[in-house]
Amino acid sequence: MTRTARELAQFLGATVEGDSDALVERVASPESARPADLIYVDSPKHLDRASRSAARCAVVALEADLPGKTLLRAANPKLAFAKAAAWLLPPARIAQGVHPTAVVAASARLARDAAVGPYAVIEEAVEIGGGTEIGAFCFLGAGSRVGEECRLYPRVALYAGSQIGNRVVIHSGTVVGSDGFGYVYGEGRYWKFPQAGTVVIEDDVEIGSNTSIDRGALDATHIGTGTKIDNLVQVAHNVRIGVHTVVAAQTGISGSSTVGNHVVVGGQVGIADHCRIEDGAILGAQAGIPTGKIIRGGQTVWGTPARPLDRFKEQYVWHARLPELAERVRKLEEKAGED
Amino acid sequence: MTRTARELAQFLGATVEGDSDALVERVASPESARPADLIYVDSPKHLDRASRSAARCAVVALEADLPGKTLLRAANPKLAFAKAAAWLLPPARIAQGVHPTAVVAASARLARDAAVGPYAVIEEAVEIGGGTEIGAFCFLGAGSRVGEECRLYPRVALYAGSQIGNRVVIHSGTVVGSDGFGYVYGEGRYWKFPQAGTVVIEDDVEIGSNTSIDRGALDATHIGTGTKIDNLVQVAHNVRIGVHTVVAAQTGISGSSTVGNHVVVGGQVGIADHCRIEDGAILGAQAGIPTGKIIRGGQTVWGTPARPLDRFKEQYVWHARLPELAERVRKLEEKAGED
Amino acid sequence: MTRTARELAQFLGATVEGDSDALVERVASPESARPADLIYVDSPKHLDRASRSAARCAVVALEADLPGKTLLRAANPKLAFAKAAAWLLPPARIAQGVHPTAVVAASARLARDAAVGPYAVIEEAVEIGGGTEIGAFCFLGAGSRVGEECRLYPRVALYAGSQIGNRVVIHSGTVVGSDGFGYVYGEGRYWKFPQAGTVVIEDDVEIGSNTSIDRGALDATHIGTGTKIDNLVQVAHNVRIGVHTVVAAQTGISGSSTVGNHVVVGGQVGIADHCRIEDGAILGAQAGIPTGKIIRGGQTVWGTPARPLDRFKEQYVWHARLPELAERVRKLEEKAGED
Repeated sequence: MTRTARELAQFLGATVEGDSDALVERVASPESARPADLIYVDSPKHLDRASRSAARCAVVALEADLPGKTLLRAANPKLAFAKAAAWLLPPARIAQGVHPTAVVAASARLARDAAVGPYAVIEEAVEIGGGTEIGAFCFLGAGSRVGEECRLYPRVALYAGSQIGNRVVIHSGTVVGSDGFGYVYGEGRYWKFPQAGTVVIEDDVEIGSNTSIDRGALDATHIGTGTKIDNLVQVAHNVRIGVHTVVAAQTGISGSSTVGNHVVVGGQVGIADHCRIEDGAILGAQAGIPTGKIIRGGQTVWGTPARPLDRFKEQYVWHARLPELAERVRKLEEKAGED
Repeated sequence: MTRTARELAQFLGATVEGDSDALVERVASPESARPADLIYVDSPKHLDRASRSAARCAVVALEADLPGKTLLRAANPKLAFAKAAAWLLPPARIAQGVHPTAVVAASARLARDAAVGPYAVIEEAVEIGGGTEIGAFCFLGAGSRVGEECRLYPRVALYAGSQIGNRVVIHSGTVVGSDGFGYVYGEGRYWKFPQAGTVVIEDDVEIGSNTSIDRGALDATHIGTGTKIDNLVQVAHNVRIGVHTVVAAQTGISGSSTVGNHVVVGGQVGIADHCRIEDGAILGAQAGIPTGKIIRGGQTVWGTPARPLDRFKEQYVWHARLPELAERVRKLEEKAGED
Repeated sequence: MTRTARELAQFLGATVEGDSDALVERVASPESARPADLIYVDSPKHLDRASRSAARCAVVALEADLPGKTLLRAANPKLAFAKAAAWLLPPARIAQGVHPTAVVAASARLARDAAVGPYAVIEEAVEIGGGTEIGAFCFLGAGSRVGEECRLYPRVALYAGSQIGNRVVIHSGTVVGSDGFGYVYGEGRYWKFPQAGTVVIEDDVEIGSNTSIDRGALDATHIGTGTKIDNLVQVAHNVRIGVHTVVAAQTGISGSSTVGNHVVVGGQVGIADHCRIEDGAILGAQAGIPTGKIIRGGQTVWGTPARPLDRFKEQYVWHARLPELAERVRKLEEKAGED
């Protein structure tokens, strides 16, 4: 979609400087941009890269100095750039219409403009909302419900009964609603604890590829509005994640733990079972939260077992100097022995 | 399936108190239960939750006091509840009959009551036992064998030659029999070491979603009876896991390591190559077992490199107090300097 | 394929001792070998295992002593064995011809001898090179390109525009080109940063099962020639990996990090964003590389945060003796108090 700088500025609520008729077609990094690509600069140290770019038009901060380009000035240039990109580049369609090879149960209810790709399987009593696109090889188990304007990339599996809100995006390979890892040990073996709950995913959630989200054992696993989950993440049974939280790749959240709103979880973090991560907490990459632990609202923690970042750093400084500290103790002993 | 409290008690070998004609249809948590749902209480601290529940019928410990409900008394209430749930709620069918879209090789041998879902691909000389259900999009490579009463959820891949026992459950996205990560470095590049072995999975194993189990290089990767493996787990070539062992999510077991019987492996544990984890060991979450290490039977270990839990805790206490210890050393030095 | 020891020796550039007409059909471990299986011994400590083997023919080191067998002597027996295995056992075909159930867009261009398995979906303008085999349920998004002699096992997904070189092997469940985890926080929620780049995978790369490789945000995610990536690995947007590097299972490489040539990355390593891992570095299993960190060429590091292996070990020795060190400090204090 081609837009003028003026149209973009209006859309973004930005001010325009320079040629407001300049045409913008796509977005790019400064190095790979062609003239009709929009670029952005959110730090003075990148102004040089931008000024060497072939792009005619750039989103910059209110005070930035970048001669020779048409400028869209915004308080948060990266945010304005992201919004511009979404407007210029609507995502490619995942499916168009209902492909004749899709296996759709008679009792499934698809909105008129829902689309289903080749070889998708839609079981009994599934509901799919308007504008939603279901990719090739997707499996929607009986009674699952997907809201409006959702995008399920090829090869997503929803086990029976999964409930997905509106504008939810799920990437390839992700499994929603598989049985939780719950067993009772007795008589020399493990017996399966019932995994009879479901999964509820609210609006505007995005989930990466090859992630696993287990159904609740007796109630629901719940993911709140606007939360973003990366690739290869494990969300166990009965987990509750709040709204507008981000969970980076390869993190695991164990059974019955809760993660609050606006939490930031780094990559490869392990949250054991029955933990409570309160609103606004930040868990550094690879942190390990032991069973039942509470991380207070707004706290930043790191390490295994996780502790406040300042404490981690202070301890680590001395850890790194342990050989030296041990030598100082040896010298003191030597001196004390001489006395 | 609806049962009376009396029938359930008989099935469980439990004693019944109260209305033995009370009907039970499903299972639930105390909070979400309707009158015909069975609940359980395995700790006195949950008796309050149970007494407020709408459920008429509860599985409780032998000595528990819970007035106003029909009680099924069992030595292990959670185990009895799990057995009751399995009896009341047989899992929904994954497939019924052989779907006309399934591609089944002429030389494949399916038991008469085996079921295969839409768009499954069953290659040459595959064998599928009685009562087994194969979900949509499953791929069973040439010569693979799946025993009786197995459940392969949609989108499981078995590479050629995989051998699966009876009553095995495998969740969506799991790959069995992919090539191990074995290369020989020479002449400036990596050459593939043959990955020509197979995978053998014994009876009553359950494997979660998006897990990877590689074939042996020259012999077999082996998973013993009753072992349970969670989501996103890596089992490398030539690994041998014993019987009735549990492996939690995102754990990785490297090439040629052995894990014994009745071992408990926490989440995100890393077991390097050629380790030996003996029977009954417990590996805490995120523990790292270095190459070639032996963890003795019954030991509980934590940390990277893993050490016995008591030692880990003792060391960690001092680690957390390192800044204070360093200050004490400084004071001693100051004092010694004054002498 | 059956070969004589003489033919094998010629192929490998090895010298033969004993019966050069001995027939070799397959490869095996010493314990499971039948007479026509080739075995190898690359360490004197395994000579006993080899001498007890039923195999007639063994690849051994130049100086090894193994009476009673036909010997192929090579400077690197394991490498010679790997090459022999690849020659004797060409991998089983993944697909033959274009299966009638494959959905192939009219504008896709397949080489005459490219093969596509059942229920594969090949979108518009896809190109597939000669000798390449595409497995069942593979999804090749619009405009993606796969070179010659590649092997995509069943259930690989290439998002639109992915570029794959020649002789690339990708195992089941792997996703190439999914959106990176890039958002801009503003106005109380996360906005998607454009994920409009692509993925370029060069020749001779092998990627394991259930791995996720995200597309670049604005440019390309890049994996160099000969690099091998294990199962369940996360490669984030804009990552660049050099040539002949190995990345073991469950490792995660965050956005915009670069990994050089001939790097060895252990399992479950976490590389945060904007790191630079220089050529020839070795990252021990579970190591954590913090944001922006540079690991110098040839360095071996371990731990979180990662430090040079020698330093890690020295620090760890004292960490393990912390309770003892604390006791020594206490004694010094006692003594100082007495003065």
